[in-house]
Amino acid sequence: MTDVSAFYAGKRVLVTGGLGFIGSNLSIRLVEAGAEVLIVDSMLPAYGATLDNISGFADRLTVDSSDVRDPDRLGVLVRDQDFVFSLAGQVSHIESMQDPMTDLEINCKSQLSLLECCRHGNPSTKIVFASTRQLYGRPQYLPVDEHHPLAPVDVNGINKLAAERYYTLYRDVYGIDTVSLRLTNTYGPRMDLESLSKGFVGVFIRQALLGERIDLFGTGEQKRDFNYVDDVVDALLLAGQSPAVAGQVYNLGHPEPVSLSRFVEILGELVPLEFTCVDFPADAERIDIGDYYGDFTKFREATGWNPTVGLREGLEQTLAYHSGRLRLRA
Amino acid sequence: MTDVSAFYAGKRVLVTGGLGFIGSNLSIRLVEAGAEVLIVDSMLPAYGATLDNISGFADRLTVDSSDVRDPDRLGVLVRDQDFVFSLAGQVSHIESMQDPMTDLEINCKSQLSLLECCRHGNPSTKIVFASTRQLYGRPQYLPVDEHHPLAPVDVNGINKLAAERYYTLYRDVYGIDTVSLRLTNTYGPRMDLESLSKGFVGVFIRQALLGERIDLFGTGEQKRDFNYVDDVVDALLLAGQSPAVAGQVYNLGHPEPVSLSRFVEILGELVPLEFTCVDFPADAERIDIGDYYGDFTKFREATGWNPTVGLREGLEQTLAYHSGRLRLRA
Repeated sequence: MTDVSAFYAGKRVLVTGGLGFIGSNLSIRLVEAGAEVLIVDSMLPAYGATLDNISGFADRLTVDSSDVRDPDRLGVLVRDQDFVFSLAGQVSHIESMQDPMTDLEINCKSQLSLLECCRHGNPSTKIVFASTRQLYGRPQYLPVDEHHPLAPVDVNGINKLAAERYYTLYRDVYGIDTVSLRLTNTYGPRMDLESLSKGFVGVFIRQALLGERIDLFGTGEQKRDFNYVDDVVDALLLAGQSPAVAGQVYNLGHPEPVSLSRFVEILGELVPLEFTCVDFPADAERIDIGDYYGDFTKFREATGWNPTVGLREGLEQTLAYHSGRLRLRA
Repeated sequence: MTDVSAFYAGKRVLVTGGLGFIGSNLSIRLVEAGAEVLIVDSMLPAYGATLDNISGFADRLTVDSSDVRDPDRLGVLVRDQDFVFSLAGQVSHIESMQDPMTDLEINCKSQLSLLECCRHGNPSTKIVFASTRQLYGRPQYLPVDEHHPLAPVDVNGINKLAAERYYTLYRDVYGIDTVSLRLTNTYGPRMDLESLSKGFVGVFIRQALLGERIDLFGTGEQKRDFNYVDDVVDALLLAGQSPAVAGQVYNLGHPEPVSLSRFVEILGELVPLEFTCVDFPADAERIDIGDYYGDFTKFREATGWNPTVGLREGLEQTLAYHSGRLRLRA
């Protein structure tokens, strides 16, 4: 695949949530490609956003600390942007159950607000929305394609689904150029290893780096697909530049799903660790979805995207980035 | 069918939106059955709520003018209620596109807020949520049953769908006893004839009563099903008292769908009128769904509910109620 970021040279690009894990990786790629990048990120505690994520690049982009929940400010920021990557979000499933109203504000209301700002102030911009495989709930068949019924099992999934529907609706009714990618488990440099509520991948990597024992919930045989963040950034960049994808919804995914115990095994080949299988905690079990891996044929055929990084290689790079950086919680 | 309201004698019942069209009819039935009724209604302009709707019953129930968007107040109001009928809503599809943020606040956020209030303050209450057939969007087959794909075509439908999913989720995860009814076109005494944006039924009845010409959009051959409000009140009351329905979602509907032009014909047999077919206005056409009528077998089998009022009889009663009451807009 040729470098998909070259297209963005000289383009004005807004990245909401640009100091978070995926947002910062995307923003850095865009800066390197010569794009004029404006990051909007309110750096809410526990959301994984930190200026450390753009260390070395801070003088080549603009950071605005507005909250995406502020529609007046958002209206100013979207003006004259050629592209908007809508990545700001509350991503914890558990936290969405503990504090559903905040999840609604960020994942639902802010997205509708962004669309309203674009409709009134910049209707010709192209918007790429980071959606999630969580919309599918417990898979009825595998791999899950985009025709699979939508049955989110938590507040986060319900709100992200409403948001995705707003994006499709604004394309259908107002002609605003939107596309949604349903991301699966994403890992890599700059991922948030401090939070304990954002899914097992970060938790396992953190525990491995700290030499703590890893607790696998259930049998450890649950399958998942894992995308290295560089592949996800490629997907976002391709979605932004492909006219064919407008108004569509696409799965990401990886051709080689692996079980959680295999994930830990690979991790154990890279760094010494011990692990054990334990019973599901009640709050995690209630919203667990069993096996999941997605079919990304539709997106591959539309854009040529194919993940290029395998799990072992990706984990090696993730560990290399984070091994010297991991801060211990107070 | 025996009187389904008798069950509620002595029960404490909260009705949100209880001064609106369906809410007031429900509240009056509950009062007559001997229930202790608390209406919450903020009487927002243009939402159809008016104290006139409970004229003659105001001294037999309590009216609280809190806004359902105020979670603190809602938390107080739900305490000790045996039943909550969640009917407060923004119902205009057109207005949901013009002011999507308000639609989100009322139809999405307030519902989640109500569920949070019940989870924390009254988890044993039973909640009946008034959902809508608008969730289905343009029908892929007829009659539409509950397995039909969900594809709302406007912001109102997206938000109502998210709300319905919250209700199902809170049953699945927290065991709160919820049920959702997907209402179709409802008409009858106390319906809002002042608003021009709540669908054609009210508009046509208003025009008929005022002697104005009725404009049918398109060919007039679009089919719909119509429920007289007393039948809908029966359905709500049955949903609240049937243990079998918990956590479920049900269509309402009528065994005899009719075309819009037939609807106007029947109206013309009751009151002199003239009508003509005109082109769709752009904003209505973009979100029009074509033919719709629902299959209510699932709800009939669960509760024995069957609509008992035909369109001619229902329209006759509607006209009789409203003919002396219709106020002209300023």
